[in-house]
Amino acid sequence: MHARGMERPSCLSRSSKMNSYITNALSDFFFKYETPRQVLVRNRRVGVVCRLIQLGVLAYIIGWVFIYEKGYQSTDTAVGSVFTKMKGVGYTKVDGEERVWDMVDYVFPEQGDSSFVVMTNFIITKGQKMGKCPELAESRYLCNSNSDCERGIIERTGHGHMTGKCVGNTTKTCEVVAWCPVEDDRKIPDPALLMSAENYTLFIKNSVTFPAYGVKRSNLVEGIDNQYIKSCVYDPTTSPLCPIFRLGDLVQLSGFNFATIAKEGGAIGIVIDWTCNLDYDQSECKPIYTFHGLYGNPNETDMARASVGYNFRYAKHYMEDKQEKRTLLKVFGIRFDIIVRSVARKFDIIPTLTAIGSGVGIFGVATVVCDLILLYLLPKREFYNNMKFKVTETVEQEPLDEFSSEKEVSKE
Amino acid sequence: MHARGMERPSCLSRSSKMNSYITNALSDFFFKYETPRQVLVRNRRVGVVCRLIQLGVLAYIIGWVFIYEKGYQSTDTAVGSVFTKMKGVGYTKVDGEERVWDMVDYVFPEQGDSSFVVMTNFIITKGQKMGKCPELAESRYLCNSNSDCERGIIERTGHGHMTGKCVGNTTKTCEVVAWCPVEDDRKIPDPALLMSAENYTLFIKNSVTFPAYGVKRSNLVEGIDNQYIKSCVYDPTTSPLCPIFRLGDLVQLSGFNFATIAKEGGAIGIVIDWTCNLDYDQSECKPIYTFHGLYGNPNETDMARASVGYNFRYAKHYMEDKQEKRTLLKVFGIRFDIIVRSVARKFDIIPTLTAIGSGVGIFGVATVVCDLILLYLLPKREFYNNMKFKVTETVEQEPLDEFSSEKEVSKE
Amino acid sequence: MHARGMERPSCLSRSSKMNSYITNALSDFFFKYETPRQVLVRNRRVGVVCRLIQLGVLAYIIGWVFIYEKGYQSTDTAVGSVFTKMKGVGYTKVDGEERVWDMVDYVFPEQGDSSFVVMTNFIITKGQKMGKCPELAESRYLCNSNSDCERGIIERTGHGHMTGKCVGNTTKTCEVVAWCPVEDDRKIPDPALLMSAENYTLFIKNSVTFPAYGVKRSNLVEGIDNQYIKSCVYDPTTSPLCPIFRLGDLVQLSGFNFATIAKEGGAIGIVIDWTCNLDYDQSECKPIYTFHGLYGNPNETDMARASVGYNFRYAKHYMEDKQEKRTLLKVFGIRFDIIVRSVARKFDIIPTLTAIGSGVGIFGVATVVCDLILLYLLPKREFYNNMKFKVTETVEQEPLDEFSSEKEVSKE
Repeated sequence: MHARGMERPSCLSRSSKMNSYITNALSDFFFKYETPRQVLVRNRRVGVVCRLIQLGVLAYIIGWVFIYEKGYQSTDTAVGSVFTKMKGVGYTKVDGEERVWDMVDYVFPEQGDSSFVVMTNFIITKGQKMGKCPELAESRYLCNSNSDCERGIIERTGHGHMTGKCVGNTTKTCEVVAWCPVEDDRKIPDPALLMSAENYTLFIKNSVTFPAYGVKRSNLVEGIDNQYIKSCVYDPTTSPLCPIFRLGDLVQLSGFNFATIAKEGGAIGIVIDWTCNLDYDQSECKPIYTFHGLYGNPNETDMARASVGYNFRYAKHYMEDKQEKRTLLKVFGIRFDIIVRSVARKFDIIPTLTAIGSGVGIFGVATVVCDLILLYLLPKREFYNNMKFKVTETVEQEPLDEFSSEKEVSKE
Repeated sequence: MHARGMERPSCLSRSSKMNSYITNALSDFFFKYETPRQVLVRNRRVGVVCRLIQLGVLAYIIGWVFIYEKGYQSTDTAVGSVFTKMKGVGYTKVDGEERVWDMVDYVFPEQGDSSFVVMTNFIITKGQKMGKCPELAESRYLCNSNSDCERGIIERTGHGHMTGKCVGNTTKTCEVVAWCPVEDDRKIPDPALLMSAENYTLFIKNSVTFPAYGVKRSNLVEGIDNQYIKSCVYDPTTSPLCPIFRLGDLVQLSGFNFATIAKEGGAIGIVIDWTCNLDYDQSECKPIYTFHGLYGNPNETDMARASVGYNFRYAKHYMEDKQEKRTLLKVFGIRFDIIVRSVARKFDIIPTLTAIGSGVGIFGVATVVCDLILLYLLPKREFYNNMKFKVTETVEQEPLDEFSSEKEVSKE
Repeated sequence: MHARGMERPSCLSRSSKMNSYITNALSDFFFKYETPRQVLVRNRRVGVVCRLIQLGVLAYIIGWVFIYEKGYQSTDTAVGSVFTKMKGVGYTKVDGEERVWDMVDYVFPEQGDSSFVVMTNFIITKGQKMGKCPELAESRYLCNSNSDCERGIIERTGHGHMTGKCVGNTTKTCEVVAWCPVEDDRKIPDPALLMSAENYTLFIKNSVTFPAYGVKRSNLVEGIDNQYIKSCVYDPTTSPLCPIFRLGDLVQLSGFNFATIAKEGGAIGIVIDWTCNLDYDQSECKPIYTFHGLYGNPNETDMARASVGYNFRYAKHYMEDKQEKRTLLKVFGIRFDIIVRSVARKFDIIPTLTAIGSGVGIFGVATVVCDLILLYLLPKREFYNNMKFKVTETVEQEPLDEFSSEKEVSKE
């Protein structure tokens, strides 16, 4: 009976013409369908275990991959732009000299970048001009005679170019060509001179575009109009969408103490998080602001290790009596880095199919595990082995014949 | 017959030594191969439907995953660097005073960053010095008596630190310690003072390195030599690779009107897109420039909402008569953000295998769908059920014996 | 016998009530388990080939996907912040005038950004003021008569706004309204004026936070304390974690020659690579510094093409005799871009399951390949075809009956 089935197609192809051969091949291809044969094991223990494993996998695929991780959506990150503007005026009265500091004076750089520094403390050295003067009276610059100050040598951390002279009578330090007098930054004003910075406000304008979905959003979302902006101040619970931040609040939300960070400086990261599900309406796509202390926090364990605070030097140049002079400021301040993190998600057929495909793959793992139980752990494993497998003999040397195939069938 | 097959291996292992046992296990492992048994269903309707589903899946995998999404390639993003340089001179004649503005005057910051501002309009306040003067004659600063101007209070959006005096005779506003006279920015020059900015040119130098492939490219690609750069101007159709951009063109390509953006300021994103298929020659890897209005577009719906334009303040300090003075500029300008997006692709064996593996997984879905049709929808579903499944009885209580296995076989 | 098996469930459902029907369906579902039936082919050639393919796939999945690519881990990129500080003093003696240059003078911008320029060479134009003066004596500005200098025209690459006059007696160039005298940048000082920049040092402070794992790291890792920082200098082999870099070393490690880059300027990328395996201890997560020449390398092939070097202009404004004046500097310098690349990995159950699922999918490919060999290449392919497939006749027109199913079975 077996042989009869085999002869038929070969007879057919031999006796027919080319055309009908192709037609047959095509119809053979299209009218046939293979599906794996399966054993239906009626065994309570195996059944329950396997079904539970399969249900677990299914729950994982649907619950986790689809619902939690939203595997049916494609993602896109945004092209964004940030513009910042500080408002507020500081006031100092040092040695009887009143002075106000407006945003032009205390923001670096001035043009509203996403990364900027707000000055909170400073050491000012007025009227520096190019000339010769002794180094600072610090241990590393001290000298006893001219031979300690080799001419032309530049101390890397020094203030100038040694002339070879030791200024013995006054400070006992080497003389240098430098901006004179040299800055003395050994004592940092405490408390910080511009403690009023706590009341400055920061306005953040952020627009993001998700190119793949053609969606453009601004942190001035629906409802944040001109009127609201004029009076609101950001608060994590009551006004989480107000784009105006009080500096003191920012510092506190980052876990810093204002007096400490104001004195020596530090860095704060403002993260604007645009995580949007564009399967909902665009207007649901709103920013979330979070604040991180980047460094300078004195409570941190690494504080003792190295290099606390944030400072840089800055000079205002002017001409006086035909000579170039400068006012040098060592600025201690809070650096703000505004970081935009964005990810938009929308239904897409490709990741959906990929997630399903991968889910089927994981289902395969469940089958493998169940088979292992069935074939190796159960007492009746040999019976199931026989049900599952049809064994062919090692009959390589023998030609294919009626007998061998008969024998195979009979072995089942 | 069944029993005979089962006894043989156990006999063998019992009678042979350990060595030959391992050899046998190995040869057993290596000389055997399992392949699923399948039913070949000869049914036109099922066959055609299933083959079409399978062909669709195959077309999807090959056409989409491989050809369209290039799933056989790995990807890498670039480490890049952008340098910009503005050229052009502006000219103003205000109150008979002629003045030219070169790049040092109108670009902020000056060092050629990827994000910078070009000044197009300004409000100048000359000769400010630290002192006491009345606030601006605006409604929110008005006062009737000294009691309205509490000493020491700083109005957040004001210009200084109140002295507690109401300057009654002239402006009827509180007196403040501030940079005096205070800036009056209530009237923005219209049209913009530096409308000539339209003719400035921007030169962009951008180099990108794809570390994973060791490929380094510059936007000065092959053919863009010194000679060409001297004369070319970017045009999306005729000179899409020229790295020199006319400001008026940039504004227009971003959907802005130059007169409007010049007056109040705005922000434009220049995206340099490096999407490279490195399976072709490196020289095919060329940048594409696109331009987006980031904010400040008055045609936008959110314009009415809040905060249009782009401006910041900037001061030039000088010494006069031993006193520090400054020239304050409120700068309105166009901010350019140059954003490099890069992705290079190259053939890689890993993603190829992964894509194939995932494709096989999706194929499995096709099989599941076809089986559902075959086993649940067709009129002959019970017949196919019997073809596909071999059922074992619930014979847990019985030991494995000749009889039960006989029965199973006979049920097929 | 076949028919008997089929009748039983249908009888049962007909005779039983609804409740017991659901119970039955559930127990049917839970107590049954399908597993594919397989042919166990005992053929040495097929067995060895297939086992080798399967072992290869298994080795690939375990070795590559799991061990090499760490497919069992999820990944996260960091939110980071970079702060830089230059130290060192430059010294020039031009025309007998001694001058030192400190960090305030040679770093742009001054506030310690992650992208900054160190001045190494300059062309200084002192005492410019707004006025009328002839253009530079260069070929493109030359004129013979006033008619060559059209009034009001601004030459894009020129220095000002033409007055319409040709200054015939001296330079034979058009007169312009400009900052006068105009800068003459035709000769770049060689060697660079600030060759001493080679000995400047750069201190980099970098902190990164991996939000997904709540891990915060600084480039001042364990062991890099205040004491160590005071004396160390980065060296790729002996001090790879010292955050202080000598400028000359940076230039050399990027493949530049210091004398060349100092003269005309260039750009260097400093990549801080945080590739961390957080399955180990956090303290193992350390930065790796690498250095890339971004552009300006004269050894490069594209050097001849266009636009070498890095320069920008910068002005210091001052008031003299009630008139605004400026000192213009054309600055040639080295631009440093500090790029943080970060990826942290940690064991996660999701990617592990996904990798396993995808591995099973690839295993499926191995089975397909082996089946192709078995069914199409072997001499005994027809025998194996018969073993693997059970064929149903095309019996669509006939109803399901005892006879047809009998025939199917008999064909095996």
